[in-house]
Amino acid sequence: MDFLSSLLNGVAERGRALIGLDAVPGSSARSTEGLCRDLLSGRGQASGIALAQAILADWERLDAPGRQAFFKMLQHQFGADQAHCARAIDAYRERPDLANTAALHRASQPRIQELLQRLNLAPGGTLLLVRMREALFEAMKGDRELEELDSAFKYLFASWFNRGFLTMERIDWRSPANVLEKIIRYEAVHEIDGWEDLRRRLEPADRRCFAFFHPQLVDEPLIFVEVALTVDIPSRIDSLLSADRSVLPPSAAKTAVFYSISNCQEGLRGVSFGNFLIKAVAENLKHELPGLETFVTLSPLPGFARWLQSLDTGSDCIQLSAEDQADLLSLNVARYRGNQGGKSRRNDLLARLAAYYLVGARSDTGTIIDPVARFHLGNGARLERINVDANRSERGLSESYGVMVNYLYDLYGIETNHEAFAERNEVIASSHVNKLVRTMKSSRPRPSSTRRERASVL
Amino acid sequence: MDFLSSLLNGVAERGRALIGLDAVPGSSARSTEGLCRDLLSGRGQASGIALAQAILADWERLDAPGRQAFFKMLQHQFGADQAHCARAIDAYRERPDLANTAALHRASQPRIQELLQRLNLAPGGTLLLVRMREALFEAMKGDRELEELDSAFKYLFASWFNRGFLTMERIDWRSPANVLEKIIRYEAVHEIDGWEDLRRRLEPADRRCFAFFHPQLVDEPLIFVEVALTVDIPSRIDSLLSADRSVLPPSAAKTAVFYSISNCQEGLRGVSFGNFLIKAVAENLKHELPGLETFVTLSPLPGFARWLQSLDTGSDCIQLSAEDQADLLSLNVARYRGNQGGKSRRNDLLARLAAYYLVGARSDTGTIIDPVARFHLGNGARLERINVDANRSERGLSESYGVMVNYLYDLYGIETNHEAFAERNEVIASSHVNKLVRTMKSSRPRPSSTRRERASVL
Amino acid sequence: MDFLSSLLNGVAERGRALIGLDAVPGSSARSTEGLCRDLLSGRGQASGIALAQAILADWERLDAPGRQAFFKMLQHQFGADQAHCARAIDAYRERPDLANTAALHRASQPRIQELLQRLNLAPGGTLLLVRMREALFEAMKGDRELEELDSAFKYLFASWFNRGFLTMERIDWRSPANVLEKIIRYEAVHEIDGWEDLRRRLEPADRRCFAFFHPQLVDEPLIFVEVALTVDIPSRIDSLLSADRSVLPPSAAKTAVFYSISNCQEGLRGVSFGNFLIKAVAENLKHELPGLETFVTLSPLPGFARWLQSLDTGSDCIQLSAEDQADLLSLNVARYRGNQGGKSRRNDLLARLAAYYLVGARSDTGTIIDPVARFHLGNGARLERINVDANRSERGLSESYGVMVNYLYDLYGIETNHEAFAERNEVIASSHVNKLVRTMKSSRPRPSSTRRERASVL
Amino acid sequence: MDFLSSLLNGVAERGRALIGLDAVPGSSARSTEGLCRDLLSGRGQASGIALAQAILADWERLDAPGRQAFFKMLQHQFGADQAHCARAIDAYRERPDLANTAALHRASQPRIQELLQRLNLAPGGTLLLVRMREALFEAMKGDRELEELDSAFKYLFASWFNRGFLTMERIDWRSPANVLEKIIRYEAVHEIDGWEDLRRRLEPADRRCFAFFHPQLVDEPLIFVEVALTVDIPSRIDSLLSADRSVLPPSAAKTAVFYSISNCQEGLRGVSFGNFLIKAVAENLKHELPGLETFVTLSPLPGFARWLQSLDTGSDCIQLSAEDQADLLSLNVARYRGNQGGKSRRNDLLARLAAYYLVGARSDTGTIIDPVARFHLGNGARLERINVDANRSERGLSESYGVMVNYLYDLYGIETNHEAFAERNEVIASSHVNKLVRTMKSSRPRPSSTRRERASVL
Repeated sequence: MDFLSSLLNGVAERGRALIGLDAVPGSSARSTEGLCRDLLSGRGQASGIALAQAILADWERLDAPGRQAFFKMLQHQFGADQAHCARAIDAYRERPDLANTAALHRASQPRIQELLQRLNLAPGGTLLLVRMREALFEAMKGDRELEELDSAFKYLFASWFNRGFLTMERIDWRSPANVLEKIIRYEAVHEIDGWEDLRRRLEPADRRCFAFFHPQLVDEPLIFVEVALTVDIPSRIDSLLSADRSVLPPSAAKTAVFYSISNCQEGLRGVSFGNFLIKAVAENLKHELPGLETFVTLSPLPGFARWLQSLDTGSDCIQLSAEDQADLLSLNVARYRGNQGGKSRRNDLLARLAAYYLVGARSDTGTIIDPVARFHLGNGARLERINVDANRSERGLSESYGVMVNYLYDLYGIETNHEAFAERNEVIASSHVNKLVRTMKSSRPRPSSTRRERASVL
Repeated sequence: MDFLSSLLNGVAERGRALIGLDAVPGSSARSTEGLCRDLLSGRGQASGIALAQAILADWERLDAPGRQAFFKMLQHQFGADQAHCARAIDAYRERPDLANTAALHRASQPRIQELLQRLNLAPGGTLLLVRMREALFEAMKGDRELEELDSAFKYLFASWFNRGFLTMERIDWRSPANVLEKIIRYEAVHEIDGWEDLRRRLEPADRRCFAFFHPQLVDEPLIFVEVALTVDIPSRIDSLLSADRSVLPPSAAKTAVFYSISNCQEGLRGVSFGNFLIKAVAENLKHELPGLETFVTLSPLPGFARWLQSLDTGSDCIQLSAEDQADLLSLNVARYRGNQGGKSRRNDLLARLAAYYLVGARSDTGTIIDPVARFHLGNGARLERINVDANRSERGLSESYGVMVNYLYDLYGIETNHEAFAERNEVIASSHVNKLVRTMKSSRPRPSSTRRERASVL
Repeated sequence: MDFLSSLLNGVAERGRALIGLDAVPGSSARSTEGLCRDLLSGRGQASGIALAQAILADWERLDAPGRQAFFKMLQHQFGADQAHCARAIDAYRERPDLANTAALHRASQPRIQELLQRLNLAPGGTLLLVRMREALFEAMKGDRELEELDSAFKYLFASWFNRGFLTMERIDWRSPANVLEKIIRYEAVHEIDGWEDLRRRLEPADRRCFAFFHPQLVDEPLIFVEVALTVDIPSRIDSLLSADRSVLPPSAAKTAVFYSISNCQEGLRGVSFGNFLIKAVAENLKHELPGLETFVTLSPLPGFARWLQSLDTGSDCIQLSAEDQADLLSLNVARYRGNQGGKSRRNDLLARLAAYYLVGARSDTGTIIDPVARFHLGNGARLERINVDANRSERGLSESYGVMVNYLYDLYGIETNHEAFAERNEVIASSHVNKLVRTMKSSRPRPSSTRRERASVL
Repeated sequence: MDFLSSLLNGVAERGRALIGLDAVPGSSARSTEGLCRDLLSGRGQASGIALAQAILADWERLDAPGRQAFFKMLQHQFGADQAHCARAIDAYRERPDLANTAALHRASQPRIQELLQRLNLAPGGTLLLVRMREALFEAMKGDRELEELDSAFKYLFASWFNRGFLTMERIDWRSPANVLEKIIRYEAVHEIDGWEDLRRRLEPADRRCFAFFHPQLVDEPLIFVEVALTVDIPSRIDSLLSADRSVLPPSAAKTAVFYSISNCQEGLRGVSFGNFLIKAVAENLKHELPGLETFVTLSPLPGFARWLQSLDTGSDCIQLSAEDQADLLSLNVARYRGNQGGKSRRNDLLARLAAYYLVGARSDTGTIIDPVARFHLGNGARLERINVDANRSERGLSESYGVMVNYLYDLYGIETNHEAFAERNEVIASSHVNKLVRTMKSSRPRPSSTRRERASVL
């Protein structure tokens, strides 16, 4: 294949000479904006690929201020046609039927969308446009107005990267090195320390990794999940990542643990696939290993420590005993390290607080606070277990005092769980977790009270 | 691969049981409309694939009236949200900035578009949606209002089937039978009479066939072109299709003849790829066989006989001598068959009329009349040669009195040719053809005169 | 792939020019025999591929007498080195240890074997050598001496086409046309009548076809088996091949019927894979469809009618009643057609005779007479059922009076069955078949008596 | 693919249960020797795969003494049948015709060969047999008698690994990690220091790597060559391997440098592919990059220092001046390090000695001394240039005082060069090299004098 692809590159190079910009009268001296106009015009019909290539080549040469200028140009020169839009509004006002609605929809479409479609004609265009959106995020930091431009990107990418067009592939030690190096690079939850560490996650018979790919981005995973096959639901990340653990024969596995899910393409932010990936992986594994009974995560609580530090223990939603309050303070004083063997009282407190954080606490806008929890609960998973002393890495301690949780994917319950969460803002949890929550003695965990939680006690 | 795909189907089947409609509380008794609403709602987040499968399965069971009803339902229940739209218009009127334009665009989007995106989640969804649009064409015949619904399909398909997502593949005698049977079925220009006829077009060393495919429609070509490698530009289709011709060694070929281009997916009407395909094939062939110098078509004139039969020879744009007029009448009398050897005067007349038809004549709306000519000239090809007595098949005689033409793709001229055609409505032709046109003595070929051509003299 | 392979051909062509025969001083004028000597000599080290190509190209241009001469040349010029051989014998006689045995083995090796190994260097060499052996079979008809030459081919092919190097692939309607046309051509049991008939055997969900391929013969199946999925063990071939039968959902199948096994490469005669293919297919199907319980054939008895026609009913091994003898004579009189509905007595007689033919009768050399029976019983299958009126095709009637049989592959019994057959010449049959045999009242079915069976009564 | 292969493993596992050893009556308690006998007997017909698997599984559990015993058992129990052999000799003596020669060849074949053929039936058998031969090499160190057993392995492997069955594949940064790790492991010339070093050799546009693979050893390269694309013929390995060199656009390359060739499978020792690989790579590169004009190596002289240290400078074949002799001694005294900038006299001497070593010196048996030189000159390459101070690595200095050479592959000259070398023992070298040799003033470089070179002066 490699031989072929290098040949095709040769074709492309020859192509640039043959029907390239040189052959488009006057084009080689055009500004990027001019080329964009050409691409949208009739001229794009005859030499669209050459124009798209030329524009993207121009783009790649720009520095940060150049890109900022490019984006402003797109925003101001390739928005909707205002006059056209005004006429469509008049027609719609006169008769708001379907035809006129549709006409209004078309009239109000920013021309940037059509331009992006045509830029995608260039070989490798899709990846460059994804990278372009990454640069747009940078530019947006200093210019919120550009968010409108971003909506055109996001709108189109949601269509292009529709789940129906993605393929799920297993990643293992036989995968291409240029894909594997991206697994190392993009792993966002538990850092991979080089190729030997990667091998430990991919090669053993009780490890799996799956990713979504788009046909146009062959070497670029969109999202991937790492899975460990185990007997029981694990309570510590060490037991999964340790270099000297013994390998379980897959046929003996009862549990599949999703211990890391990482998005790879910052430029696809807001286009979500995680939900689909977990379910597709679960089905795939169930087919391969019918003995699997439990599908579960071992997940971080990235917002727990921050929430805890800003907690107003005097609020009416959490009632802590004097002893607990002392422990909480000592936890702080010990600068996270204090959570060691034998400190069972403090561990109990952490478990209870984590349970309350996930089940009872709400943000100002009434949502669950923890982003990982929102993701899994939104997928219909159930909050299964709180594990204290589960992650003693620097990051695990600083983000969540070492606490991790298991979310359980019970394929028969996800719809009901999802509805409870989506419609009634209710967290479905195991009785173990619910019991922990009740120990917090909060009479009514209610969103309206969350505002007060903000006042920090620690 | 087959083994794998049958396994994956097995996964899908299990999937339907595992996370299928049974597991979605109350869903199995829902109407199709209800399921569509579910799919658009939050519920779609948790069990989107199962819902999409269920809706498409329902759809497949519908008969023609049921489909008509389904389309009406989509049109009336999944248009834009009128109230939302009205508010967006107000905001836009107040301040017509980019943000409000974009908001208006989103508000006026028919919800059917989002629904189609989510239906595409189902395995095999893309093909079913393409087929759905074919059925919509049927339904539109009796209900023009449905054209608005179609615009949502077309809008989405233009995005999904963007050239950047297509792959070009060679079709030959080693291609899968289930693809080849579609080549037989979809060939629209020169009918293929069974597998042995197909083999004659694919297997010889001086024949090529290329098609565009979409990653989601593996067995379904979107469009294909058949190519003959020759020494000279051919003037008769027989010389290409004859069963007992001798095969040319590819290395001796000077000319690549595109002698048939067929669209395969009626459901993708209006999403054009032909332009890209011809250029990609030309580059591919040039790379494989550097000795190729000429890229040319041998094309039908599907509208020529009809135009000729309705020609008003008394119009000021065509001046025919009395002798010519007599010939023209005799042509008619002879019911197409008269065009035989020795009748060189009549052949000359046909050549001159065909040249005028393609270069000088215009429809009521001012466009070139022949659809095949519009396609190639719009791509930037040059009208190279008129060939009389070129296609003696029943269809060739009845559509165009046996005349065929060559359009030449000169890769260095296509942009200029295209612009002349697109911007000045001017047909770029060879001096040979232009000479033929001038013999018609038409002082000024002008669009405004075309109306009168309609009155038939024959 | 096709694009790539045509490129690689291009490489080969360039290769012929670059390091080809032109570059081998003096070679282009050498005789084929001279080139063969060069290939075996040191010269073959430097330009082996070019020499091998040149020799095979020479070979392809030969007519039948030329091939005969070529084979004679090989036989006489590329046998073992007699002087070398004599020395090795002397050494061995002196001390018959392992070293001297091995030296003798090497010395007595015909050089043709090394020559064939080197001819295999040419691109496409393997296929050409297989075809060469086919031509050798032709030549052997007039010259039995060439059988010795054939032993060199067979010896090498047994090594090259070792089961460990073969891949099993499913053949279906998605397979390449150039493979499928070979399925049509090579089907040896139940003729395939064109592409639509082929489709009926491949496309339905309850049909399977598997073949063995060798990596060097990509488009050439070595052997294939056609399988029907059914509920019960079938008793008539019509029920499997009929065009208007209803298709069984694979998940409902209980039985896999191997109804046709065909060898494709005459040039690999004597290198057997059938045994492995049936077992590999059975395992593959069992994995795909765990509901399958029975693996069975529906097989012809190609030697039955011939045997019956030469049967000496007065022999001591078959005792027929006067009534049976009359029936047998009437069977003959009716010229095979008489076996129609209602004639149950005659059917009973046929079943009993067929059972005896397969279980009791032996050839002069003491083996089972029927070649198909020898194959399946040798594989360890059990003779399960005799089906009269099972194949009313012309061939079925003339070869076996329409009788067919089922051989059962019980994966747990094949070893025991095989041993009984291979070591004790005993046919393992079901009680149903054994009961039929016993009705023949033959006191002792013994090989020694088979000679008398030869005298024909019919 | 991975998914599929894990499935097929599942098939194999089920297979072991289904037709496995359990089903072979009495087999599970058989000794390995007994199983080998079964495999060769009729029993192997029915359950060959299961038996082969069982034997190889037994083999894998053996320790070094166990393997020694296993090999002795093979040698003594599976040699040729002596009685059979004696009879064949008698027949041959009586009439030494082709038939009797062939019969003798078959009779003297050790049965181990047929046994190895059948062991190859087991999934993964080919690789295990290659590994088995590696173990045999170990065992041979203590027991030369086993060399005879090895000849059976070598004989078979030469047939199985015939060039005609190998595929050449490009190795690059997109290759599977489990293949790449073998490139790191097997690189034998210039060690690869981990994944980042590997990437530097594979990813840049001016680097290539190609390997031969056998269809049965998918993840195991047999041999690979590393290539650098350059403008000029390089004279130092540093210029190719340096981490901070600048990358050359491939289209600007004039020269392809084969700078490392490594065999991967010790178990295939004596089965040579290097010759074919270099030529196939040269053709492939010439096709991809028509601008390439020169194909050349940059090679070590692994035997140079050893030869120099044992040189008898008083011999009649090398005449060194007193000055040279002093330099040679100082070279020794300086312990290799002395070869630094400015020491041009000493460099000159090294170049002249190296030229003589390669062109003039001969071993006791009259062959060229350097194994790398023998390989390239035997392939028909020309000795092009001597480069002093070319490899300053520890190994380069200790093996050859830092000298490297370029062998030139001129596709039009390889046949003539090869013949000069193979038939007249003559080294074809460039005039530059020949001039260096002549400075050694040796009147006649003759093999007969080489014995005296052995007496060391250093």
